[in-house]
Formats: sequence, structure tokens, C-alpha cells
Amino acid sequence: MEKIKPRTLSGFMELLPAPQIQMERFLQTLRETYSLYGFTPLDTPLIESAEILLAKGGGETEKQIYRFQKGDADLALRFDLTVPLAKYVALHAGELSFPFRRYQIGKVYRGERAQRGRFREFYQADIDIIGDGKLDIANEAEIPSVIYTTFIRLGLDRFQIRVNNRKILSGFYAMLDLSEKAGEIMRTVDKLDKIGPDKVREILIDDVGLSCAQADEILRFIGIQGTNAEVLSALEGYRGQNELFDTGLEELATVTKYLAAFGVPQTHFAVDLTIARGLDYYTGTVYETVMLDHPEIGSICSGGRYDNLAEYYTDRQLPGVGISIGVTRLFYVLQEQKLLSSAMNTAPAEVLILPMTADVTAAAEVATFFRGCGIRAQIYTEQKKFKAKMSYADKLGIPFVAFLGEDEINAHKISLKNMTTGQQELLSGTEAANVILEDLRIRNNAKLIQG
Amino acid sequence: MEKIKPRTLSGFMELLPAPQIQMERFLQTLRETYSLYGFTPLDTPLIESAEILLAKGGGETEKQIYRFQKGDADLALRFDLTVPLAKYVALHAGELSFPFRRYQIGKVYRGERAQRGRFREFYQADIDIIGDGKLDIANEAEIPSVIYTTFIRLGLDRFQIRVNNRKILSGFYAMLDLSEKAGEIMRTVDKLDKIGPDKVREILIDDVGLSCAQADEILRFIGIQGTNAEVLSALEGYRGQNELFDTGLEELATVTKYLAAFGVPQTHFAVDLTIARGLDYYTGTVYETVMLDHPEIGSICSGGRYDNLAEYYTDRQLPGVGISIGVTRLFYVLQEQKLLSSAMNTAPAEVLILPMTADVTAAAEVATFFRGCGIRAQIYTEQKKFKAKMSYADKLGIPFVAFLGEDEINAHKISLKNMTTGQQELLSGTEAANVILEDLRIRNNAKLIQG
Repeated sequence: MEKIKPRTLSGFMELLPAPQIQMERFLQTLRETYSLYGFTPLDTPLIESAEILLAKGGGETEKQIYRFQKGDADLALRFDLTVPLAKYVALHAGELSFPFRRYQIGKVYRGERAQRGRFREFYQADIDIIGDGKLDIANEAEIPSVIYTTFIRLGLDRFQIRVNNRKILSGFYAMLDLSEKAGEIMRTVDKLDKIGPDKVREILIDDVGLSCAQADEILRFIGIQGTNAEVLSALEGYRGQNELFDTGLEELATVTKYLAAFGVPQTHFAVDLTIARGLDYYTGTVYETVMLDHPEIGSICSGGRYDNLAEYYTDRQLPGVGISIGVTRLFYVLQEQKLLSSAMNTAPAEVLILPMTADVTAAAEVATFFRGCGIRAQIYTEQKKFKAKMSYADKLGIPFVAFLGEDEINAHKISLKNMTTGQQELLSGTEAANVILEDLRIRNNAKLIQG
Repeated sequence: MEKIKPRTLSGFMELLPAPQIQMERFLQTLRETYSLYGFTPLDTPLIESAEILLAKGGGETEKQIYRFQKGDADLALRFDLTVPLAKYVALHAGELSFPFRRYQIGKVYRGERAQRGRFREFYQADIDIIGDGKLDIANEAEIPSVIYTTFIRLGLDRFQIRVNNRKILSGFYAMLDLSEKAGEIMRTVDKLDKIGPDKVREILIDDVGLSCAQADEILRFIGIQGTNAEVLSALEGYRGQNELFDTGLEELATVTKYLAAFGVPQTHFAVDLTIARGLDYYTGTVYETVMLDHPEIGSICSGGRYDNLAEYYTDRQLPGVGISIGVTRLFYVLQEQKLLSSAMNTAPAEVLILPMTADVTAAAEVATFFRGCGIRAQIYTEQKKFKAKMSYADKLGIPFVAFLGEDEINAHKISLKNMTTGQQELLSGTEAANVILEDLRIRNNAKLIQG
């Protein structure tokens, strides 16, 4: 028969079994951590009506979206999880309780130009808290806690959550009478890390058309640094000139004030006036998260406060706050940087049972017993040489092999070999299970990320 | 602003939060159970090259598939998890260890005519064991154990796994010199449950063109019933006339023999000679699973042994055995039949913390403490009347509410109200956590399905 060459589309991540187990751990950690904060899981279709997904429309989205006809329906694949959330909340508002806290972890699609580390299909992991008409600032203060706990549970310690408030920025530019140019200024200031202050100043003057005094004032403002207390104190110097600014400052002070109570250490949090995020969407607190040893990766978890989730679908005012982790890209970077822990268990089973007799009844009984104890167990029944069987366990990284020959069966025992130490013991089923479970307990302490 | 009416496409399941938590439990139970048997998780793209997905081609698949162009690429959404597995194994064979046991739980797409209970996007949950060249019969004997444990863990008890062997059927029809008509006969026999034996006989004679004697012989054969031992004993009567039949009988006897060792009670297993499954794919053991109280639903978990997984992509002989659960359809039916347990916890949190002071520091500290104990905790900080706050907890089914007023804060205590009993106690944080965890332990014993 003529064969078709098997291939996976470029820009689509397809993992081998061991890294896939690491990815599963990633997703499971996100599910568990998000749940701890009262976020309820949501799952929406990957396909929606194109009209729904493109309600906002314009720009990159239209170009990148996967859109197609089926019958006479104009369909598209979701390109993020925010638009489906907006649709969901607008559609089901009457059946939801507000504030509505949901998490969603799912694949989204963007037909970007293929390049290394860019994916056309990728997991996003979002949390959002949606209010009905209003949403208290305390929700914004809680978000850094979710981010902190998530990364700590994943095993990452060297990261920092950076927070700003869009009201402070908008208020500040209003003070300078630059409200109309605020968007352009923020886009320029956003490049500070990449191009440096001198270049930012140059663009602000030459391209945006600010005076030298205005540019200097802006650079002085975004140059405010120090501890959270120091930055807040410096901001106090601007108070009283613009109402929006003052509100933003109150909010930022509130978010900072509750950090400790929410379990976020000062070391992992910084007020950073250069953070602006997307321009037309966020209206209050904004968040970015950077890996301190890998700033080149950019933000690994971002989001913020917005005033109106679903304005394209409903008149109902639905303010919210949310963050998103680009899971596939982060996983890819962690792999590339060799930051995924090698201590994490990636074997498909804790124990491989090798029957040494033609009849596998005893082996099946042992497997059933182990599984009842919560131990992942596999029986190897293929007719292969002993060496090939051991090599199978070895390649898969299965930590224990249980031999069951005539002697073991007659003695109601198992020969259990620890593949790490090479040690082999004759044990009862219960003894063997305890040895395996104790080893598993230690193995499972290993987190996904090292460092 | 002109609003776009929010809607979800017909044929796409989108659940409200409480049933979504039930669905998550369903998926998590599958992940955990499949893992116990040494199946490793796999995740493949939803989009593949159309050429890959349609390698086999023909029939319903071509009509139902979601196929579209992006740039000059001819793409399609996967319509099952078997074709992507075939591609995966053919592509990565050199990096896999065989037997390769994988599970995959993911959405697949079929543009079927929309009707109640038919979905165009639905979850399948598949396990397969793939051998390299050969695969021992013991793997086929183990599959009923996976099915049994899966449904028991989901909470279903009234089900039966029905097993047959295609070699027995093919061998039997060869004995009658009806090999060429075997496909047609099996398709007819497959309707036995629906149309009854008289109608089957009529079709076999009138449409398939068998003699009355042949039709009677077939009806006698598929009419063999009784305990597994009785059916096997009746089949012994046919031994020695056809080699394929004899091999099939050996295999069926082996599968049946190991049942007890694999923990499957006789009550949940039946040799059933009327089971045939899809015609051109399966070559050995075939499985179906029926809910005893709802036979009208049809098989809820089916599969079988096949000889060649990836013949369209590789010359490598890859025999396998697998089963699949149509999760979305089964979930829908369980919902419709009111078989989802109302005892299962579907709240987004175990405890809602109500700060009774303007400052929420103490509430945030309590939330952080609870979360550290593994308790899902939410703080309610909106400015609402007390009644509205209690009603929020009530509507979401949150089992505990923790009040934190001046008195509680000064005494370093929490007023914990059990929403089920109405009882309220003044407790320390640790005491409150223990009360909640104990309640949670009991709640979590409730399974997804009742009965």
C-alpha cells in the first residue's frame, strides 16, 4: 500500500510521553491551585460562530484567526479564552452568581507565522473574577496571591510579580495635559526594558511630539524605584492634582497593603510604574510576572482589571479582573532552558510486574492488589528475553520491577527490585506496596520546575 | 453600541458551573484510573493535515469532517483519537517503548446533523496498548479490568462488560462456507437486540440470500447463552473444524480465565456471541459495555483488538487493543436520566469567608491559612446586605461560611457556620480547618454516578 508520510503540523506542540507527563503535572497544578481560590472550572467550545469571536474585530485577530465554513455556518476557532468567557457570561448571566470566579485551561488557535517557540495551537490558563455592576478592589489584591502560589507550587521561586495601576498612568498623563497622547506614550514607555531610557526619550520627543520638559517629567516618573513603600511614598508627592490618579494610588496602596495577609512575600512583588499592558482593555490594576533569571522571556503571567467584559454582547456592566498564563509557550521555554526538574517522576508506572511463568494469574493478582493501593502497575507479558524486559523498565524509568516466578508464587511473595539502587528483596504484597508507596511519596515531592 | 446576540453553536456542550464540576470529576476519574494501569497520557493537536486524517478516507468520515484551508494548507479537525494515535506512533516509533500504553482524553469533531443528544464536539477517552509486531493475549484479558475499575470508581455498579472474539465469528462463518458474506451477516446479527431473532432470520434469508438451514444454524449459534463457563463449553462443540475458530476460542477462554485475577466479578462480565463491533478493523477480542438498567443507551464503552494500527503511514506492523468512552454523550445521558449523584460536591469552594469589617486583612489571613490546609476558600468582599451574602453561599452550595467581625478578630477566632445544619461555632483557625476537612472527606466519598 502507498504510505502517507506521518507528520505533525508546524507550530503544533506534540510531546513524547515523558515530557507529556510533565505537561500534565503543569496543568494539574494549575487546576488545583486555581481551585483553592474558589475559581470554578469552565469549558467552552473550541469552535464558535465567527460573528461572536470577531465581535470586537480588527487587527491581528482577523488575520490570525482560523475561520471556515461548514454548511452555511461561518465558524472560527477561539483565539483566546476571554472572548468565550464574555459570551458565556453574557449568555448565562441569569444563571450565574456574582462575583463569578472561573478558571479555564484550554487550547486556543492563532495562525501566526511559524517560528521557533511560536505556537499556532497553545494552552492558555486563565482566571477571572467577574462582578455584576461593581467589583471590590480586594479582588485585585488577591490576584498576586494566586500567581505567587501557582508558581511556588510549580517549583519556581526566582520570580517577581510586577504591579501597576492604569488609573495612575492615565491620571499622570492628564496632569501633564497629555491624555490624548497617553496611548502612544504608554506604548513607547513599554519598550523601556528593551531600548533604554535615552531611546524612549528620543521617541517621545521626535515621534510623539512632546517637549523636552514633558519627556523628562515622564522619565522621572517611570524612573521611580525602590521598595513598595518607597514607590508609594514618591507617588504621594503627585496626590491632589488629578482625581483619577488619586483613585489609582488608593487602589495600588490597597493591593500592596493586603499582600502579606494573602501570603505574598515582599521579595516576590514590586510596584513598577513602567508596566502598562494592552491599552484599551485594562482600566485599573495591571500585573506582569517575570522570571528573575530569565528576563528575556518576558512576562509569564499577565493580566489586570477591566471595566466591561462583555460590552459587545450585553448592556449589563460586567467589570472584572483576570490573569492568564501562556502554558505551552512557558513549558517550551522551561524545556529549552533545562528548567524542568529531572527529579520529577515521568514513568508511566511505579512498578513493572514480570511474570516468570506461562500462566499470569499470580501477576494479574499482584497488579490488581497494587492498583487497589493506588500504585500505578503494569504487567509485562510479551515473550521477550529477560534483558529486553529489564531494558523496557529502564527506558521508561519505572522505579520498581516485581518478579513472580514459581518460587515467589509458592511462597506468596514478590521479588521486588529497586531499579535505582539495584537492591532486590523478597517481600509480601503488603510489604512491597509499602516500599513502593514510600518511594513514591518522596518522588512526588519533586516539583515540575527546579529553581 | 449594537450588540451581537450571545449564543453557543448547536451540537456543542457548554455546561453551567455545577455540572461542569461533575464533568471535571468524570475526566479526573478517567485520568486517575487509566494511569493505575500504566497508561501514559498523550495530547495531540486538534488540527492535522487533512491528508493525514483522511488517509483511510471514505464514508461518513469525509462527509462529517471539519475541513478548511489556512494559507495553502489543507487542514481538518480530528474526528477520533485513533487516527492521531496511528500518526503519533508511526511518527515517533523510534522513540517509544513497546508495548506502548497510552490514554488520551480529548475533544473530537464530527459535523453530524444536529439532534438531541448528538454532539458535534465531544470528548472521547481512549486507552490503547500497541505492540511492535506482536502483542500478547494477556493485554486483551486486562482490558475488562480497566473498564470495570473505571465505572466502579465513577459510581456505576449496574453494568456488564460483554465480550466476544472476532476470530470465533469469522471461523464459524468459514465453517458454514459463508466467509464472503460474513460482513453482511454480522451487520444483520448486530441488530438482534433491536429487531429480534425472527426479523434477523428473515433478513438473512431474503436479503443476504442464506438457506433456511444456514440461517437457523447462525441463530442457534448466536443464541448460545448462559454463564461464561456454559457458553465456552457450548463453543467447545464447534472445535476442530476451523483453525481460526479454535484460536479465537483459546483467546476467549484466556480472557475469561484471567477475569478474577484482574478483579472483575463474574456478575459484571458476559461472553456474548452477538457482539461484533465495526467490521473491517477489529480482529480478535471485542468489547461492549451496557448499563443494565438502561440498555436503550447502547454500549457506553467499546473497543477491541486490531492487527494493524498505522498501515496507512508505516510498514511497521503495530497490533493493538483499545477501548473508548464517548464521555460527552455518556455525561449527557447520565444527566438526562438523573443518574448524576446529587451528593457530589459541586460548590466552587468549601468555605466562604465574610469579613464584617472594612479592613479585610484578617479575612485574607484566614483564607491564606485555609488554602494552605488544602481547603478551597473564597472571600466575599462586595458591599452587599448580609442576606445577599448568605444567599450567595447558599446558591453556590458552599458548605461553610466563616464570619470575621471585630469580636472574632480580637479573640483570634472564627465564627464558622455549617450551612447544612445551620449550626454556628466560635473556633480557632485550626479547629475550623479540621471541621471543614472532616466534612470534605465525607463529601468527597460521594461518587459521580449514583447506582
